[in-house]
Amino acid sequence: MSERSQISLEELQLAARNHGMALEALRYDLTPVGLHYLLIHYDIPAVDPSTWRLQFGGTVAQPSSFSLEDLSALPRASIPVTMECAGNGRALLEPRPVSQPWLLEAVGTAEWAGTPLVALLDRVGVDPDTVELVFTGLDRGVEGGEEQTYARSLPLAECRREEVLLADEINGAPLPPQHGAPLRLLVPGWYGMTSVKWLGRIDAVSEQFRGYQNERGYRFRRDDDDPGEPVTRIVPRALIEPPGIPEFMTRARLLPPGRTVLRGRAWSGRAPIERVEVSVDDGHEWRPATVGAAPSPWAWHSWRFAWDAPEGDHLLQVRATDALGTKQPDQPGWNVGGYSNNAPHRVPVTVRAGVLVGA
Amino acid sequence: MSERSQISLEELQLAARNHGMALEALRYDLTPVGLHYLLIHYDIPAVDPSTWRLQFGGTVAQPSSFSLEDLSALPRASIPVTMECAGNGRALLEPRPVSQPWLLEAVGTAEWAGTPLVALLDRVGVDPDTVELVFTGLDRGVEGGEEQTYARSLPLAECRREEVLLADEINGAPLPPQHGAPLRLLVPGWYGMTSVKWLGRIDAVSEQFRGYQNERGYRFRRDDDDPGEPVTRIVPRALIEPPGIPEFMTRARLLPPGRTVLRGRAWSGRAPIERVEVSVDDGHEWRPATVGAAPSPWAWHSWRFAWDAPEGDHLLQVRATDALGTKQPDQPGWNVGGYSNNAPHRVPVTVRAGVLVGA
Repeated sequence: MSERSQISLEELQLAARNHGMALEALRYDLTPVGLHYLLIHYDIPAVDPSTWRLQFGGTVAQPSSFSLEDLSALPRASIPVTMECAGNGRALLEPRPVSQPWLLEAVGTAEWAGTPLVALLDRVGVDPDTVELVFTGLDRGVEGGEEQTYARSLPLAECRREEVLLADEINGAPLPPQHGAPLRLLVPGWYGMTSVKWLGRIDAVSEQFRGYQNERGYRFRRDDDDPGEPVTRIVPRALIEPPGIPEFMTRARLLPPGRTVLRGRAWSGRAPIERVEVSVDDGHEWRPATVGAAPSPWAWHSWRFAWDAPEGDHLLQVRATDALGTKQPDQPGWNVGGYSNNAPHRVPVTVRAGVLVGA
Repeated sequence: MSERSQISLEELQLAARNHGMALEALRYDLTPVGLHYLLIHYDIPAVDPSTWRLQFGGTVAQPSSFSLEDLSALPRASIPVTMECAGNGRALLEPRPVSQPWLLEAVGTAEWAGTPLVALLDRVGVDPDTVELVFTGLDRGVEGGEEQTYARSLPLAECRREEVLLADEINGAPLPPQHGAPLRLLVPGWYGMTSVKWLGRIDAVSEQFRGYQNERGYRFRRDDDDPGEPVTRIVPRALIEPPGIPEFMTRARLLPPGRTVLRGRAWSGRAPIERVEVSVDDGHEWRPATVGAAPSPWAWHSWRFAWDAPEGDHLLQVRATDALGTKQPDQPGWNVGGYSNNAPHRVPVTVRAGVLVGA
């Protein structure tokens, strides 16, 4: 990896807190807790579940307050979902937008369970002039010079999708603090910033919300003066489970010659994955991989590609295309916030006789 | 935080994989899985627990192989243990040793459970000329130019301590892959590199082991030619749970004036913590904090310190002294590998009227 970009100690502080999924964990259909990526804007708040309440107000017939016990009486659902940070790939952009310096690990797939949001909408009775719901967390900090509580809005039509959950479980266990305990929003298909953690209140509103995270934070902007378009759904991406064994410091990969099965995952928040292509020669030739079924319409597909690895240095690449025909671009698309860089994953490998891969 | 040191993309790759404990998690007596620090030299190996066996050989009367079922028939124990990476604090050294760039988050406390190692020693019958046990994992990679499987030795007397476990549970749940499933060594009081994960074999040896991680990797060396002394037990350290609210990017802390209770944890792998001192004026004056009990002799103590915070900018510091009289030094001690930098934790804060800390 090139030394062109140096990371500041401030960016390192964020990287030390907000961890990615080690890429060998692409082997798991469901990412174990602790390997799933995490992005926490401020601090994990201390929440006492016994006194916690979800307030639901704004343009509704019946403003309400729900305890965890109240919610447990409502219908439940569970669904495997691939979640990705909108900033995944940011640190590979040039020039590098300064924020959480993600390489490509800001992803994970979990089985989330909880109450479908529509069940609450039915309870409170949303007014006909409602355009959005505003979800406010319990986490507070300073961003863009503004003291604020984390909040994001979502258009009402998205809120009414049956797979949108108020989640209190991950992979069959209660949410841990870092994933938003006791309750978080979970919006399959959208980047992770939408799925507000440590949910404190929901407000129905009749005009578009103008809070920081919608109006300034998560937008595709060409330059600082561009108001930009909002960041919404996850664009297609495929990743390679790095083959062979790594060098500790450089993460350079070493494997023996011969037949090796390359594997990985591919996903899109817009449509199923239709095609995954692999190149073993730095992008000159692309060949189709075999794409597996996804555990839900909102979770990643596995893929595999048999490769007769010859000795020498090779640059592996992979790219995905979804059923809407959206294909990963050859080159990164730059924007001020460094969002949605889905240029193909590139994995340099050295194939050398005598390398022992198993222990 | 100063911009003096820039981090390379290679170091960033390590920081994205090997995550620290977000410092607000100092509030938890036991660190939730996913917040506990992780350092993985190579890749997390794929281990099938149904075919996995622990081989125990070398200078023993009865070379043996143990399945998970075999181990479940042996005595069990559980113990809260604070684990810390030997490289914690490395990225705060100047010049910065290039490796996993830890700031101060490479720590965590968990309730570990499993089979006391002594129970296995009794089974296999260690020969009288045995000096060490060598613990070999199933994780393989390249380090210092050597292709290797992760392995560390431990003197026999340490192995015989009753609190040394072969652990298969953390915080009441089965070990997740990233913490060494299905079985890992757990050596309370020693830095984390000793507690070999994904354990595959144990060999009793009658001469000192000369493997990479003992002979070259984890040693205090003044320069590249110095053979150095081995890194062993954890030196004293105290950390502050950062008060107030953070700025997203800089992590700068903001809080309102008035009485605030500073809290944190302090630990040593050598003896109980006897004293914790806090400075709120950049180290000019140190005042005693109240030190709480530790949940076990091998886990951190809580501490608290009431502070009447005046408006303005302040530099908070904390330092611990253990019952052997070992006190954290004012300045970092440098060595080639960047191990055991236990200079005091420094937290700059701004106290300003009107700051709202709760949501």
